[in-house]
Amino acid sequence: MTKISVKEPVITLTAGPVQAYPRITRAMSRPVHYDFDVYFQAFYEEVARKAATALRVEAPALILHAEPAVGLEAAAASLISPDDVVLNLASGVYGKGFGYWAARYAKEVVEIEVPYNDDIKPEQVADMLRRRPDVAIVTAVHHDTPSGTLNPVEEIGRLVRDHGALFLVDAVSSFAGMDIHPDDCCADIFVTGPGKCLGGAPGLTLVTVSERAWAHMEGNSACPSASILSLTDWKNAWSKEAAFPFTPAIAEVNGLDAALDAYLDEGPETVWARHDLTARACRAGVQALGLTLWPVREEIAAPTTTAIRVPEGLTDEEIVAAMRDSFGTIISYGRAETKGKLLRIGHMGPVAEPVYALVAVTTLGGTLKRLGRKVDVGAAVDAATAVILAAGT
Amino acid sequence: MTKISVKEPVITLTAGPVQAYPRITRAMSRPVHYDFDVYFQAFYEEVARKAATALRVEAPALILHAEPAVGLEAAAASLISPDDVVLNLASGVYGKGFGYWAARYAKEVVEIEVPYNDDIKPEQVADMLRRRPDVAIVTAVHHDTPSGTLNPVEEIGRLVRDHGALFLVDAVSSFAGMDIHPDDCCADIFVTGPGKCLGGAPGLTLVTVSERAWAHMEGNSACPSASILSLTDWKNAWSKEAAFPFTPAIAEVNGLDAALDAYLDEGPETVWARHDLTARACRAGVQALGLTLWPVREEIAAPTTTAIRVPEGLTDEEIVAAMRDSFGTIISYGRAETKGKLLRIGHMGPVAEPVYALVAVTTLGGTLKRLGRKVDVGAAVDAATAVILAAGT
Amino acid sequence: MTKISVKEPVITLTAGPVQAYPRITRAMSRPVHYDFDVYFQAFYEEVARKAATALRVEAPALILHAEPAVGLEAAAASLISPDDVVLNLASGVYGKGFGYWAARYAKEVVEIEVPYNDDIKPEQVADMLRRRPDVAIVTAVHHDTPSGTLNPVEEIGRLVRDHGALFLVDAVSSFAGMDIHPDDCCADIFVTGPGKCLGGAPGLTLVTVSERAWAHMEGNSACPSASILSLTDWKNAWSKEAAFPFTPAIAEVNGLDAALDAYLDEGPETVWARHDLTARACRAGVQALGLTLWPVREEIAAPTTTAIRVPEGLTDEEIVAAMRDSFGTIISYGRAETKGKLLRIGHMGPVAEPVYALVAVTTLGGTLKRLGRKVDVGAAVDAATAVILAAGT
Amino acid sequence: MTKISVKEPVITLTAGPVQAYPRITRAMSRPVHYDFDVYFQAFYEEVARKAATALRVEAPALILHAEPAVGLEAAAASLISPDDVVLNLASGVYGKGFGYWAARYAKEVVEIEVPYNDDIKPEQVADMLRRRPDVAIVTAVHHDTPSGTLNPVEEIGRLVRDHGALFLVDAVSSFAGMDIHPDDCCADIFVTGPGKCLGGAPGLTLVTVSERAWAHMEGNSACPSASILSLTDWKNAWSKEAAFPFTPAIAEVNGLDAALDAYLDEGPETVWARHDLTARACRAGVQALGLTLWPVREEIAAPTTTAIRVPEGLTDEEIVAAMRDSFGTIISYGRAETKGKLLRIGHMGPVAEPVYALVAVTTLGGTLKRLGRKVDVGAAVDAATAVILAAGT
Repeated sequence: MTKISVKEPVITLTAGPVQAYPRITRAMSRPVHYDFDVYFQAFYEEVARKAATALRVEAPALILHAEPAVGLEAAAASLISPDDVVLNLASGVYGKGFGYWAARYAKEVVEIEVPYNDDIKPEQVADMLRRRPDVAIVTAVHHDTPSGTLNPVEEIGRLVRDHGALFLVDAVSSFAGMDIHPDDCCADIFVTGPGKCLGGAPGLTLVTVSERAWAHMEGNSACPSASILSLTDWKNAWSKEAAFPFTPAIAEVNGLDAALDAYLDEGPETVWARHDLTARACRAGVQALGLTLWPVREEIAAPTTTAIRVPEGLTDEEIVAAMRDSFGTIISYGRAETKGKLLRIGHMGPVAEPVYALVAVTTLGGTLKRLGRKVDVGAAVDAATAVILAAGT
Repeated sequence: MTKISVKEPVITLTAGPVQAYPRITRAMSRPVHYDFDVYFQAFYEEVARKAATALRVEAPALILHAEPAVGLEAAAASLISPDDVVLNLASGVYGKGFGYWAARYAKEVVEIEVPYNDDIKPEQVADMLRRRPDVAIVTAVHHDTPSGTLNPVEEIGRLVRDHGALFLVDAVSSFAGMDIHPDDCCADIFVTGPGKCLGGAPGLTLVTVSERAWAHMEGNSACPSASILSLTDWKNAWSKEAAFPFTPAIAEVNGLDAALDAYLDEGPETVWARHDLTARACRAGVQALGLTLWPVREEIAAPTTTAIRVPEGLTDEEIVAAMRDSFGTIISYGRAETKGKLLRIGHMGPVAEPVYALVAVTTLGGTLKRLGRKVDVGAAVDAATAVILAAGT
Repeated sequence: MTKISVKEPVITLTAGPVQAYPRITRAMSRPVHYDFDVYFQAFYEEVARKAATALRVEAPALILHAEPAVGLEAAAASLISPDDVVLNLASGVYGKGFGYWAARYAKEVVEIEVPYNDDIKPEQVADMLRRRPDVAIVTAVHHDTPSGTLNPVEEIGRLVRDHGALFLVDAVSSFAGMDIHPDDCCADIFVTGPGKCLGGAPGLTLVTVSERAWAHMEGNSACPSASILSLTDWKNAWSKEAAFPFTPAIAEVNGLDAALDAYLDEGPETVWARHDLTARACRAGVQALGLTLWPVREEIAAPTTTAIRVPEGLTDEEIVAAMRDSFGTIISYGRAETKGKLLRIGHMGPVAEPVYALVAVTTLGGTLKRLGRKVDVGAAVDAATAVILAAGT
Repeated sequence: MTKISVKEPVITLTAGPVQAYPRITRAMSRPVHYDFDVYFQAFYEEVARKAATALRVEAPALILHAEPAVGLEAAAASLISPDDVVLNLASGVYGKGFGYWAARYAKEVVEIEVPYNDDIKPEQVADMLRRRPDVAIVTAVHHDTPSGTLNPVEEIGRLVRDHGALFLVDAVSSFAGMDIHPDDCCADIFVTGPGKCLGGAPGLTLVTVSERAWAHMEGNSACPSASILSLTDWKNAWSKEAAFPFTPAIAEVNGLDAALDAYLDEGPETVWARHDLTARACRAGVQALGLTLWPVREEIAAPTTTAIRVPEGLTDEEIVAAMRDSFGTIISYGRAETKGKLLRIGHMGPVAEPVYALVAVTTLGGTLKRLGRKVDVGAAVDAATAVILAAGT
């Protein structure tokens, strides 16, 4: 093991990659099997089916062998044809970024953009769809992680379905941390992965694809093949009858298997509830510290990430460095447009436990003290604790 | 853990994915660290530098976060500009396949193709370069795995360098199993990965890029960015100063670290020697079984894979199935053009040990017996053993 | 990880410790839980019950937290009172050794001893019990590992039961490798462990105790308490109601859990069958090599260990060293009285697979060649293969 | 993996078994090697020498293959002869308990006993040694874990050395968490283990033995042999020349190797400092919660365990259950005499990090609130934080 002079963090409270469940990291040490062997083929099919169970869809889930940013690029490349007008919904860095990919493949991209601490309103979408009946594909991010905000994809999805367009949803950092599934939001393509709320490692993408979306890709003359950017290459890869287009990431599939087991064994509702409780306790605590939530309204704050404004007069870098130095806890910066403006406390997977709200509040509070701020950490702990105790058991 | 009705193989003797060293699978169970944390950044730099040490180059190696087939596609996409004439050398399925990627990006692809059991001759390359002085990029596969054959990339590399072209070498399944490094073959882009002779899991690509190749990519107006197909996005990712373009596959990097340690700790020369000895013992054994090597001349047989013709009157499928059923050993089929024509015994990583030549010979021999063939397994074992014992210690 | 200049063995074919199943070593990396926590207490009870299922007894199995040699010492210390006449059956080093422990605690030890390549005959026991009606406890080793021989404990057990004595059986290296359970041999104390045929690590003892044996211990005024040598201290430790007398070996219990799962998931009959087949193939092979089995009759050869005489003119040490050096395979020496006289090839756990009979035969054969012997390895492989293929599937 | 209806704890803050470092649990999944193989023998010697380095002694450390309670019983059995008068120092449950073992083997045991929240005073020992010049062996516990209190073994050790007696020290739960080594306290037998402050699993004992102590055991006609209770059986087991008396717990030795690496790589002084800081922060916090430390004076409170009185009107059981239920954190009960009277927060190994003092204080505080107590958690967090921040970095 490479010795690094920097000490490892003690507790990781980031918005992904996240601390993985030990049962998942153990699973990643399983033997590496040959992808053409009947054992692995049967195993792979089971994992694809188990993922479908977790995603609450019928068909085996599509597993792509790179992290979800790649899966999203591939979804854009495969789905969006040179004939398509795409409506891209941007309420944050990831939504905005998807628009660039869409523009690479689409005939035209129209966009609804809101401030990166706000959400897209269904009526904005309805209005745009009225004005642009030629929109064939709508793309949205459910939880724009760099903002810690949710978009109402369920309502938007119904509008898109009524319009007759296809709906592509990035649920990378919300699925498995709350009650969201492809059918809940009429998603034709729904993208997520094992490395956020499932508490696994990054390195794979999970995708569900509706029959309409497959048909659209088949009609897309520019849809890649023999390429990492192709979804269609992998359409039947779950089946023993089909060869893998290229070598699957065996160890990541082993980890995914365990991640799905962990989620289904514990019970999705139980998992969502502790994500929600942890986030509520954390939000109560950080606000009692005198900090301001980044989301413009608390109801759009994701249960999987608490984003807070960097206090006036301090920088994100100094807060993160001091927190790590004094307490060994680490949290996430913002990203791109939100970098420097906010800090993010992740509530995903194994740290989606109320005690970690207390860890976040006390160590962030202690850090602010160290940096010379007068903060009432006691009030913050009391607020977070009150939320936890009110939840009963 | 998903229970699969198919029994796991007992011994995997495939040409990749391969049985991983236990120390590598253990490493894949290390904690998943946050990619923006100072610990992981320092760790990542160390791994990139350690990879450079193994590859015997100066600059930290480029790590791409998907398996080498993706890395090769990305290399084609990034390096080959619409102005480039590419000479593609095809002595097997992988060489041929690279030509299709090259054609996607190049002005023109010229090709030298030889039968898939033979190698490219340096004089063929010299001749072509004389005829086509406009060739700007030459691409070759060192070990065309689906054929188990080597190409003389050292000699070819010198010709290419003299010509002033760039040389892209796929050494995915030869590097770390024999004495081949970027500088040995004047490679401007040299692609390999942890999942073959390094004995790790598939899921990453290792690339070295010469200054000339970086300059060529910078001059390539079609070079992808914000894309899994971009090499330039990741150019400086090893440095703490640069952000990762997307989330690295943390667990795979942990595994790579251990794979490089295993290789460097044991000593490259020692590792190559046991790959070579195992392959020589295996070739002696299978020939004494009455089987025919696939390579047209034994000197082009790779030390990392022994490819043999499927005996007349039998199919690859029935041999593989019977071998697995009676002995629990599994070997590789051919692929695409070579599927059905040959079988491959891998000598990579932990099974590049002479005893596994005996395992291959005895279980393949026993399988042929089961399928009604008269084979002299005793002679085969004697032949393999003689090679092993002659190696002394 | 400590770097050792000696290379690790490539394949371990010993009579214990054995190569563990990967799923068991993975389980040993589970989190270490606090023994007084309700989770661990519930888990421990489940493991004790699962062990009972495997052992085919009703009561949760007794788990002792040290390897079976310690468990056997503790059984002697706890069961044998100063009033007891013990009949010890010695057909090997372990049987003989148990007599010394018995003598430490008993009023008198009488012994039946046979040559260490032979077995105890039921009629010998019957005769002795007639002559010594005061025998209260009979002790036997089912598989005397240093000899690779079995004793007919089923028949002996019935005689002991009829006599009214207690029967203590050491089944450490036979249980889980063949069809033997406490009730099969009327055992009042039956001792085994996870580190042999269950394919786990050494470090725990599994014991079943009959009601009669518990009663005898309760009447034994010299029965230890507050001691590692006490069985009674641990009698109720499986129950949440009872405290652990001292800290259990948490990681070993995690491993035991996985070992039992592996055994029960695969199916005991299937596991026994592959131990048997491997041993039969191995015995056929080594005899065809011209070697002599150590057991005086093949029917008493254990299906879990093949013991062979060291050929005239060679030493065990030179054979083991040369075999390791040329092939990386390791096998077991004899022990105490049998050291220097025999070598042992283990068929336990993951290497109880027919292919490993071929590994043993070819590498032992090759080693004998290296040491100057004329051996017909081909005939040996043919003999072993014939056994394997005859087993069909 | 056995599914247990009880949820696993989220954070374990117990006084042993403790949460192990991931690198140690990973090491426990290393291959199980054969104990008679040259690789394992060389490895074992290295581990014994590495343990000596950590213990700051010359001779390879003695490794016993069961947890330290067994190691202590064995030390008593081996060292104490029927001719020995033993002075046992009892300031807690473990010290008292050792006296019972001593009484099993000694001619006579004299004892100094103090209340279980106090420490033994050197002058008490001096006085007793004056009165009983025939005392040949003095036995003490450094950190009596069930009380969370330290005894001044350095001063006592000098008195014992001057007296000419042998000194046996139980440092199981202090070594590696603070600056204590055999030579610091003139210990002739010094007992510890990997499962407390080294942050590993329980299951082994580490012992150092002085030449004088070995000589005493050699003169002890009652010293066990061929027994788990024998230290002399294992005296030379570290050496390749000597056979292991019984099978070592291979996986535990693998874990010990990693535990020692973790300790030595980080640097003992650094490890002790974070144990100390965590304990000081925790003590400040729990006192600010209005709780009373169990130790009669804070300066005898161990840096590895904070023991607090169970508040009037509450029971230990209800506190532990409510804390686990609301927050997922678990702490230790008292034991035997101290059970019901105190609760213990462990600061050992990976949780000897200041942030866990905050976890302990906030979750214990929240629990008291849940149970109807008025506690000022804010003041407690402030007190703990002040200690942490004062430590600077």
